[in-house]
Amino acid sequence: MLSKFQVKFVKSLHQKKARNSTHQFIVEGEKNINELLNSELTVNFIFALPEWLHNNRAKIKKPIEIIEVNEKELLQISTQVTPNKALAVVEMPKYTLSHFDTDTVIGIENIQDPGNLGTIIRIADWYGIKNIICSEETVDVYNPKVVNSTMGSFCRVKVHYTDLKSYIRLSQKLVYGMVLDGFSIYATLFDANSMILVGNESQGLSDAIMSSVTHPITIPRIGQAESLNVSVATAIACDNFLGRRL
Amino acid sequence: MLSKFQVKFVKSLHQKKARNSTHQFIVEGEKNINELLNSELTVNFIFALPEWLHNNRAKIKKPIEIIEVNEKELLQISTQVTPNKALAVVEMPKYTLSHFDTDTVIGIENIQDPGNLGTIIRIADWYGIKNIICSEETVDVYNPKVVNSTMGSFCRVKVHYTDLKSYIRLSQKLVYGMVLDGFSIYATLFDANSMILVGNESQGLSDAIMSSVTHPITIPRIGQAESLNVSVATAIACDNFLGRRL
Repeated sequence: MLSKFQVKFVKSLHQKKARNSTHQFIVEGEKNINELLNSELTVNFIFALPEWLHNNRAKIKKPIEIIEVNEKELLQISTQVTPNKALAVVEMPKYTLSHFDTDTVIGIENIQDPGNLGTIIRIADWYGIKNIICSEETVDVYNPKVVNSTMGSFCRVKVHYTDLKSYIRLSQKLVYGMVLDGFSIYATLFDANSMILVGNESQGLSDAIMSSVTHPITIPRIGQAESLNVSVATAIACDNFLGRRL
Repeated sequence: MLSKFQVKFVKSLHQKKARNSTHQFIVEGEKNINELLNSELTVNFIFALPEWLHNNRAKIKKPIEIIEVNEKELLQISTQVTPNKALAVVEMPKYTLSHFDTDTVIGIENIQDPGNLGTIIRIADWYGIKNIICSEETVDVYNPKVVNSTMGSFCRVKVHYTDLKSYIRLSQKLVYGMVLDGFSIYATLFDANSMILVGNESQGLSDAIMSSVTHPITIPRIGQAESLNVSVATAIACDNFLGRRL
């Protein structure tokens, strides 16, 4: 049984402002919640149907406050039109951004579509990239649509928001910027201590950030499409730079 | 000024049944309509704001019935929550499916998400693939969400719906099926007279179609994500098999 306060609280987390002031966010979807329960993230509440609790109680190895709800109540608090069987409220992790880390990172300037950011987090997780550095204007990683499209990878990949230019300057990483008129990605040598940088869906990389790009690179086009989707381009860069070395 | 009949007609095209019975579909979005006006597709109507007509009339080189509408009227017939400035009603092209064509095709079994199909059409267009062969149960290419996410590539890439197994048997193409436990894509030789085959978002390729797969292939995983999004996997396959030959 849900209290009015609980409904109000969970619904407030649909909005970025409340997420940031309470440091909590919503996780839904079977795959996401399964990964969450196996992760190191702190889960504050799970609102779930009796059926879900029956099947999953054994998986819950952490002290989590569990609230049994019916379908109507779940729909009231869910971010989905057709909710799954459970909704978790999770503590935002506090990640420290190191400028001395020599691993490859993905840099994101102002991506606005939640599905694109979520898909990039999943791609990072597939290729073993542990950190994504976003400009402050990039869509919020705790937006429920972003979390949903990560398919659980939000539990493993650390997403940081900071000033991209300062990060690049301090980290001294090489920057492989994805553009439409750069050098062929197939002919580009890759240094692991670097950033694969992608820009906004319609504008691409800004002039301001281009001055920090050491290697402007392009996926050579064979056909006639004007561009590739930004998450697709990120995947192809990761595959060429990290996958093909296998 | 819109008539009631026009509103009813265009709104009916939001649904697959009416699209199939009238052989017409809706195109919206600046990029899509620009590409459409430069394509060989037959445009029956354009419903547009005065502002759009003022800026675009010179681009219209075909005999098209143009209906000037205001923003409220456009919202009534649009498939978008925030419509752009114009909506076109287009004749479905009649494509002939050749079994003797020796070009690479993409095969799709039962993809359900419109964004995924649209993104794959855009990827095909980027890598110069002219034909996509879909199982009958795959999401409708003329679904407005599919058309929107192609960014104009629906004008160039031919999407066919047929029995996949029969097509494969008759065309005698090699079939590179994307699976999670196949041979490494990096070590796979590629023959251009072939199909790159991808399956449903959650089920992957069915057992029935797997018997037609000559080369089960996998993108080697470095990190921990369980899978990649199907359009991302298609892009990586196209890049490895078609792009890297450049």
